[in-house]
Amino acid sequence: MRLPARVRIVEAGPRDGLQNEAAQVSTADKVAFVDALADAGHSIIEVSAFVSPRWVPQMADAAAVFAAITRRPGVRYTALVPNLTGLRRAHESNVDEVAIFAAASETFSRRNINQSIAESLETYRAVCDEARRLAVPVRAYLSTSFGCPFEGTVPVERVAELTARLIDVGAYEVAISDTIGIAHPGQVGDVIDAATRTVPLDRLALHLHDTRGTALVNVYAGLQAGVTTFDASAGGLGGCPYAPGATGNLATEDLLFMLDGLGIETGVRLDRVIEASRRIEQAVGHLLPSRVFRAAAAKRHTESPS
Amino acid sequence: MRLPARVRIVEAGPRDGLQNEAAQVSTADKVAFVDALADAGHSIIEVSAFVSPRWVPQMADAAAVFAAITRRPGVRYTALVPNLTGLRRAHESNVDEVAIFAAASETFSRRNINQSIAESLETYRAVCDEARRLAVPVRAYLSTSFGCPFEGTVPVERVAELTARLIDVGAYEVAISDTIGIAHPGQVGDVIDAATRTVPLDRLALHLHDTRGTALVNVYAGLQAGVTTFDASAGGLGGCPYAPGATGNLATEDLLFMLDGLGIETGVRLDRVIEASRRIEQAVGHLLPSRVFRAAAAKRHTESPS
Repeated sequence: MRLPARVRIVEAGPRDGLQNEAAQVSTADKVAFVDALADAGHSIIEVSAFVSPRWVPQMADAAAVFAAITRRPGVRYTALVPNLTGLRRAHESNVDEVAIFAAASETFSRRNINQSIAESLETYRAVCDEARRLAVPVRAYLSTSFGCPFEGTVPVERVAELTARLIDVGAYEVAISDTIGIAHPGQVGDVIDAATRTVPLDRLALHLHDTRGTALVNVYAGLQAGVTTFDASAGGLGGCPYAPGATGNLATEDLLFMLDGLGIETGVRLDRVIEASRRIEQAVGHLLPSRVFRAAAAKRHTESPS
Repeated sequence: MRLPARVRIVEAGPRDGLQNEAAQVSTADKVAFVDALADAGHSIIEVSAFVSPRWVPQMADAAAVFAAITRRPGVRYTALVPNLTGLRRAHESNVDEVAIFAAASETFSRRNINQSIAESLETYRAVCDEARRLAVPVRAYLSTSFGCPFEGTVPVERVAELTARLIDVGAYEVAISDTIGIAHPGQVGDVIDAATRTVPLDRLALHLHDTRGTALVNVYAGLQAGVTTFDASAGGLGGCPYAPGATGNLATEDLLFMLDGLGIETGVRLDRVIEASRRIEQAVGHLLPSRVFRAAAAKRHTESPS
């Protein structure tokens, strides 16, 4: 079984992770977190979201975070944007790239962004057109690609079709997303197979959640299907298995432990990511769920002289 | 990629799970747990260990547990035994099978059972000879097959050789065990490849720990290598990611969720295992780490009218 020699990790912790945290994290803590993640070797970091502060209060300081981070050469600092207003604010903050988010389930689309799928694609076409004018690359998420909390099963044909439409409206890459962490590895192969009938493999990424502990095995199925870009969140930030409604982001540490073991290059240093997670763990005020991070914490505890 | 149509799960929660729990669990709670696991459809359950109560106080009531469980037809109730004394006590309790435990690392063997590997194989040869006389089948664990906390890397050749020796002394099956949860999926394929050079595939099982979140992906690599027997522990009992030194057993629920998704038959009902785990969770006094179990608990919480 041939696996890719190199994988690109999209670090989404500062945005997808923190936006699900109840405790308001200070701008200074966010900036230190992003800088630490860049130090760890990440080449692309989703820093924040230019969305309504009424909608996501945690992301209200997006511009302040972008103004304060240390831009390292070779690192792309990105932001989520829901519409043209968000894109313009993001551009004013000199983002390197923006991300848009459509859904593969009609009910989820209406509940999450208050638009039908078709309406959202029109919105995003306008965003992509303007982004092209501004020379800002656009990445897309396709939520609920493996299942919807309201509709249940989502047909692979619909995922494949919407992936193609997002590329068509102007995204350079689509992160096929398991929003509720329900995918199994057989399904990952099926969805990637279906999507690659219309879109080249190198335009696809996987954004997996670990709600049911399947994120890593789904990464492995993705690797076997040839996928080379995976989203992850430092510490598993944004998910906590001990909290009801936990979203359970795939932890960057868990992903790196496996990829390092498999000899797959990422350019990201596991020990440095653990350091970044330790700092943000104190800011969010609860233990982070990454198993590798917790195993490292347990080891420190055991080896401490006290 | 062809996967097996059917998998056999060895439920080790009552022994490998509970033996790592700090709180003493009552005999009645253990009996109810074993009975609930049999109700869930398990065909083989490791009930307890006939070891010194000074060594493992949690297992001191092994005979009382065996005396009180309801034996269901078709279910094998097994026990861990370290030596001939343990075997005889187990036989008096009418166990259907016993399990012995060797290690692939010399240092771990000395620290865990106070014998060299060679000495332990002599002990186990005597156990297997006597077990054959008593018509009691013997299963073997081979600990630290993917890495040792003291020695680090363990050569695959040594794992293969010791697997063959355990079959040779009389075990019908060897559970190749990732005691510290350090394996990655590439290593699983390598170890199974090496072991099957000397032992038929159907004599091998995988006993995986989830300390670093890799248990499920390692199961998947095992399935792809043709392995059809996997150990698991209800609720992930015996491991807690929030406790230092957590051992992190693969949770039966997480395993079942993936196998059910892949359409692989097990005969075990996920909802019933979750019920069994809910009861034992109260007895051990802390939240169980299984992600699927926690996701189910979060769903109940969200949907509750309160």
